[in-house]
Amino acid sequence: MSASEQWDYEADVVIAGYGIAGVSAAIEAARAGADVLVIERAGGWGGAAALAGGFVYLGGGTAIQKACGFDDSVEAMRAFLNVAMGPGADEVRIADYCDGSLEHFDWLVDCGVPFKPEFWGEPGWEPPGDQGLMYTGGENSYPFNTIAAPAPRGHVPQMTGKVTGEKGGGYMLMKPLVDTATALGVRSIYDVRAHELLTASDGRVIGVAARQYGNPMRVRARRGVVLATGSFAYNDAMIAQYAPRIAGKPAASVEEHDGQSIRMAQALGADLAHMDATEVAFFAEPQLVARGILVNGRGQRYVPEDTYPGRIGQLSLYHQDDNVYLIFDAQAHEEAMASTSSTPFFKTPPTWVCETVAELEAEIGLAPGSLQATVAAYNAGAERGEDPLLFKKAQWLRPIGSPIGALDLRGHTGGFTLGGLLTTLDAEVLHVNGEPIPGLFAAGRAAAGLAAWGYASGVSLGDGSFYGRRAGRAAAKG
Amino acid sequence: MSASEQWDYEADVVIAGYGIAGVSAAIEAARAGADVLVIERAGGWGGAAALAGGFVYLGGGTAIQKACGFDDSVEAMRAFLNVAMGPGADEVRIADYCDGSLEHFDWLVDCGVPFKPEFWGEPGWEPPGDQGLMYTGGENSYPFNTIAAPAPRGHVPQMTGKVTGEKGGGYMLMKPLVDTATALGVRSIYDVRAHELLTASDGRVIGVAARQYGNPMRVRARRGVVLATGSFAYNDAMIAQYAPRIAGKPAASVEEHDGQSIRMAQALGADLAHMDATEVAFFAEPQLVARGILVNGRGQRYVPEDTYPGRIGQLSLYHQDDNVYLIFDAQAHEEAMASTSSTPFFKTPPTWVCETVAELEAEIGLAPGSLQATVAAYNAGAERGEDPLLFKKAQWLRPIGSPIGALDLRGHTGGFTLGGLLTTLDAEVLHVNGEPIPGLFAAGRAAAGLAAWGYASGVSLGDGSFYGRRAGRAAAKG
Repeated sequence: MSASEQWDYEADVVIAGYGIAGVSAAIEAARAGADVLVIERAGGWGGAAALAGGFVYLGGGTAIQKACGFDDSVEAMRAFLNVAMGPGADEVRIADYCDGSLEHFDWLVDCGVPFKPEFWGEPGWEPPGDQGLMYTGGENSYPFNTIAAPAPRGHVPQMTGKVTGEKGGGYMLMKPLVDTATALGVRSIYDVRAHELLTASDGRVIGVAARQYGNPMRVRARRGVVLATGSFAYNDAMIAQYAPRIAGKPAASVEEHDGQSIRMAQALGADLAHMDATEVAFFAEPQLVARGILVNGRGQRYVPEDTYPGRIGQLSLYHQDDNVYLIFDAQAHEEAMASTSSTPFFKTPPTWVCETVAELEAEIGLAPGSLQATVAAYNAGAERGEDPLLFKKAQWLRPIGSPIGALDLRGHTGGFTLGGLLTTLDAEVLHVNGEPIPGLFAAGRAAAGLAAWGYASGVSLGDGSFYGRRAGRAAAKG
Repeated sequence: MSASEQWDYEADVVIAGYGIAGVSAAIEAARAGADVLVIERAGGWGGAAALAGGFVYLGGGTAIQKACGFDDSVEAMRAFLNVAMGPGADEVRIADYCDGSLEHFDWLVDCGVPFKPEFWGEPGWEPPGDQGLMYTGGENSYPFNTIAAPAPRGHVPQMTGKVTGEKGGGYMLMKPLVDTATALGVRSIYDVRAHELLTASDGRVIGVAARQYGNPMRVRARRGVVLATGSFAYNDAMIAQYAPRIAGKPAASVEEHDGQSIRMAQALGADLAHMDATEVAFFAEPQLVARGILVNGRGQRYVPEDTYPGRIGQLSLYHQDDNVYLIFDAQAHEEAMASTSSTPFFKTPPTWVCETVAELEAEIGLAPGSLQATVAAYNAGAERGEDPLLFKKAQWLRPIGSPIGALDLRGHTGGFTLGGLLTTLDAEVLHVNGEPIPGLFAAGRAAAGLAAWGYASGVSLGDGSFYGRRAGRAAAKG
């Protein structure tokens, strides 16, 4: 930096991105005495968080869990996450997150985030109303229910949207946090795209080069820069390089998720992790899925149908080549479509309807005998109230009768990326030499978080807020 | 660089790593008039290549293919690779490689690499003798035989090892290439570990910092540095970050594969691709596998058993959680063990032997009825000479009789990494800003090559030598 160069803005802590990680960093940095400026690519705060269902994955015995009658422990939460977050999950980070979960819940409540102590226990992606607690990772389904005592840990801020048509859970999470930040004096400027991290001659990050309406802008960070711009789900080149399975189908993300933070930090030698990992949504009515059987292109079942839809999505996309079908009978279809928790978007007629399994098998184009054997085995177990193959819970077991239908669910998946910058538990961005890059911090989906090759809804808003706070505190220290 | 700093060695082109990519780069750089120095971590040349089977994936109608009676075309080769190299494979690179394949074969022959025009058509990882041509990617198996006209493209240098106990195919590839390089004046120094790329103030790579027997060493590159140090299969941290499925089980690689080139280039802002992709070996006798059926933990078949073992390995590890069993009868076991092409290492007795499928199913611990349905369906098809589920070729279809045995093949996989530095077709290493890093080139498994999430034996020695040549020519230009 030559002394003659001008800064357009200055702050102690500069945060790129005003979603869940950015606002959490802003609050904690401001509380630590820092002057904080948030720069945001979009025209306002919110990010993907404000548009999300709003789940925050928390446990260990929160007030909401207790009020709803669930026992939970830090140990059970950790045991679940260690398995459910997939091969390669960072057990040290998971333990750290579980240890801090109760305090983090209280922090959110202190910031004004409302949670209604009501449990929703039906299959689905989200509660139909303003219920505050739900299973969001398959904790009570096989195999996870054999690994740790199940407890629901999806905490959703009380929303008014589904009741009054106003605001959803993600908005009800973000609004009080942004209000808290604003009350603390946090400043924000919008329509600003960061494109380069500025460093001093010793390598320390001292600011950000950006553009607003195409005009160059230089923002000085006296103590530190926090990268919180979200995933790279909308960066086509990065998707092709790292996560091609979700190419062309980003979901639960916003187009501001361009991977820019990751690229800027990589240019300084930042390390990465879990770049191929993705959340995968499965676009089918969970009430119908639980009542049917999912089969792959060989007519074989592969997942207990009553588990977390995101797990079904991952197994369908990554293990079954996105080539799957849902088989059900007329009664199941009728019940599911009539369910109060079913989603209007998924109220679709079957792709095929036949009198016999053999006819359906031929209609779909499955190998002769394959689906017939699968349905026969499933029905034999269901008659006894058992699913010896995949351990779907007894409440969803009933022999599949006639007429029998199927939904073509090939390609019914989409998702966002879970990999990103490698950070310490204090959200310092690590250089490939193993040392933190001075002055640089990251949280949210720009960083590799709790999830590696598994997922549970609420993990992103969970680790984004949790490590966003850490980033804010660490950056404020300078 | 201050002028007072000393260089210990100087050359026009400095190549890190003396395996297949390094030697190919060295030859072409020297032929382009450059003074070439190779620095190698091990005590001698060879790398993983010299220990490998030696397959080079080439096609489009090579002299060996023609002599063995196979028609092949660039189009068929490209169509196969576009599918077989997996989601995310770089079709531009594949087309480039296929277009140059015939010339590359001739180049290897001109360098003295011997290929014997004899085809080996039995299932297996490698030919039992000095045969020079083999299927190595499942080209003649389902589904690839429905996508492109099959042709064997695994070209293996004529080895003396299996005949006389001397040298294998990889050695017979490397030896003539190293002799060629040496005759061209290429110098080499050993026991040298590179740890940092040295740059000029404008960012151009001008040398390498290294250590020999712990002593620091600085090597100046007047025109360019070529990174050719292989995969990161032996870097535990990188494996945990990117490819945790092969954690603890590197295979077909050498411990020098420490990812050092990737790290050094990342420190300069280099871009990456396909970091989670791996080759996966499947440790079981191919002659027995082809005669049996492979089932997963649900007792379901998932792959035609007569395909490329590396494909079976990938599908077993990534899609079936490494939880697979091989089912066969006594006759199949006897035939496979007696086969002239079977591997002594795999001459093992069954883990379980039973009189009936039901007994075997219970012994293994599979869900009641699951294996019985699978065997019944397989046998019904085999009676008709058909495999409607997975299209194993008729020559391997025979109903499974009694006594029936099984091999426990859980965890019988291992592999090496396929991801690495993102490069241009001229082997220039790309910065995350999309521009080449001046003076820096990479080839071999330190770079992302032809394979993304698929593989065929011979692809690594193939693209390593092909783009190694490109790297040498580009580096010599400076």
